[in-house]
Amino acid sequence: MPEFDLIRRLQNAICIQPDQDAATCVVGIGDDGAVLDVPEGKQLVVCTDTLVSGIHFPVATRPAAIGHKALAVNLSDLAAMGAKPAWFFMALTIPSEDQKWLDSFARGMAELAQQSLVLLAGGDVTTGPLSITVTALGLVDVGCALQRSGAVVGDLVVISGRPGAAAHALNQLSKGQVPQTGDLAALEYPVARLKLGQSLRGIASACIDISDGLAADFGHILRQSGVGAEIQLADLPCPDSMSILSDPQRWSLQLAGGDDYELCFTLPSTRAHELAGLSESSGVELTVIGTIGQQRELVFRTKDGSRFKPEKLGFRHFDTTEETTP
Amino acid sequence: MPEFDLIRRLQNAICIQPDQDAATCVVGIGDDGAVLDVPEGKQLVVCTDTLVSGIHFPVATRPAAIGHKALAVNLSDLAAMGAKPAWFFMALTIPSEDQKWLDSFARGMAELAQQSLVLLAGGDVTTGPLSITVTALGLVDVGCALQRSGAVVGDLVVISGRPGAAAHALNQLSKGQVPQTGDLAALEYPVARLKLGQSLRGIASACIDISDGLAADFGHILRQSGVGAEIQLADLPCPDSMSILSDPQRWSLQLAGGDDYELCFTLPSTRAHELAGLSESSGVELTVIGTIGQQRELVFRTKDGSRFKPEKLGFRHFDTTEETTP
Repeated sequence: MPEFDLIRRLQNAICIQPDQDAATCVVGIGDDGAVLDVPEGKQLVVCTDTLVSGIHFPVATRPAAIGHKALAVNLSDLAAMGAKPAWFFMALTIPSEDQKWLDSFARGMAELAQQSLVLLAGGDVTTGPLSITVTALGLVDVGCALQRSGAVVGDLVVISGRPGAAAHALNQLSKGQVPQTGDLAALEYPVARLKLGQSLRGIASACIDISDGLAADFGHILRQSGVGAEIQLADLPCPDSMSILSDPQRWSLQLAGGDDYELCFTLPSTRAHELAGLSESSGVELTVIGTIGQQRELVFRTKDGSRFKPEKLGFRHFDTTEETTP
Repeated sequence: MPEFDLIRRLQNAICIQPDQDAATCVVGIGDDGAVLDVPEGKQLVVCTDTLVSGIHFPVATRPAAIGHKALAVNLSDLAAMGAKPAWFFMALTIPSEDQKWLDSFARGMAELAQQSLVLLAGGDVTTGPLSITVTALGLVDVGCALQRSGAVVGDLVVISGRPGAAAHALNQLSKGQVPQTGDLAALEYPVARLKLGQSLRGIASACIDISDGLAADFGHILRQSGVGAEIQLADLPCPDSMSILSDPQRWSLQLAGGDDYELCFTLPSTRAHELAGLSESSGVELTVIGTIGQQRELVFRTKDGSRFKPEKLGFRHFDTTEETTP
């Protein structure tokens, strides 16, 4: 089956009625490129992320979960920018044409695409070791994209959801243990906080998704904003399943495990009263975990006031040198 | 070195002053996504293509050539749509952090990016078997993108350049022979016909790049336009180096070898007189090689009027069934 037909087959599997509000795909799959209309008054937000088998997901991962996750990690980046997803492009490299695998992969991706009203507008299928690169395109009103650089001293640090579940599940799998269903779902079927990200436009001063771990990713906000922060570990919300772990074990997974698709954002303290409404409208738990300070370092403080330092700061490729907080 | 720094390093290496006419990159590398301004009156054209080591280029290929080619194959798709390149995103998967390799790879990509005035606006670097996915974004005036579906009966079939050199070089390499410099350059440093593609807007009735081979790719134009064509093999321009081959050997490489980044387009016969000017302004040889006909098949005709059928129709992944002309 020619690559062209594979893409078409995936498109049929991932066929959705794009959101009426979303921009139009004038020319889609089947030409050298897609032609897209970006509506007036909108800016384009573009993210790209690759998942490699054995690196970003265990080799034994079910194809539907791989399809879901390849799209979800990119939608999470759009969420962190406050963008509304519009289209995506998928470059799929597979060792052989396994129709059952492909159907399952496409189903996993299609379900998420439909939920998120994002249209597969093109792609490429090649032979090689399994990996998937998705490039996702979203839209924001001009000048309204969330960025990493706007945090100021006195801002509150807020986290969505309860980070750590995915890293906990992966940790258990690596030890031959069976993770709880919720933790496995966090690992295999992460949910991008799209509604929350869009609600944060004009409210959050900075925002990031914490896919590489809270410590490393929040560090980007601090570096790019030229500030520091103190995080109260007692306030860091914990998945129920992780209560069996010791505090240091739990914190290490929560701060540096990675594969959490939660948003971490900063908020002027004068707007703290809006958090309850934001949480309700976006359907996500929101917790204040710290404050932005002047001193350019990231401090994790335990209940008794002492500092906690995670062994590593987050998921990093080629991390030969110890990454240090800002 | 964290992935973030790698991307930044590549960006610095690939740093260009974007074209003043091109749209602006409001937020670039270093956030969850890039924020891009698409100017009013323009449509976005998006292409994505993956190169996998050992599949799309020989394992021993020099990194600079890989960097060049990964971008060039995508620019060629933009050319076929008549689009002007604006930005690109690169997902690079590398087995290990080899600084020398990376510098050379970046240099190859940077030189082409600078020539083509296209800006690296984001990317992802991961560990894994070597592969590169580039997603290229270009701009066209609204409604002016070239497509595959507009060929009509009586149109002339035109080819740019002289297809076959890349396939000839690869063929020689696979036999342990040393290709001529020009042929090796065609394989390793293909040139996207960007100027030509942009000049063809409003002139060509259909256009495609023939990266998968003339027979297979031109077949897409015929299928999508609902027409057929007769190609005169005596008119197919041949690289000088290939004159040592027998006609059938040569034609097979020229029609089905692939890795040619030439454009094949159709043109109303009333506009044939414009070809000389188009060729001069775009600096590319243009040759009429056939005519669009009613009968929905693609016929390659030799000098004596008999039919020639290439053994295979082009470079296809997972091509388990014989692909047939339309």
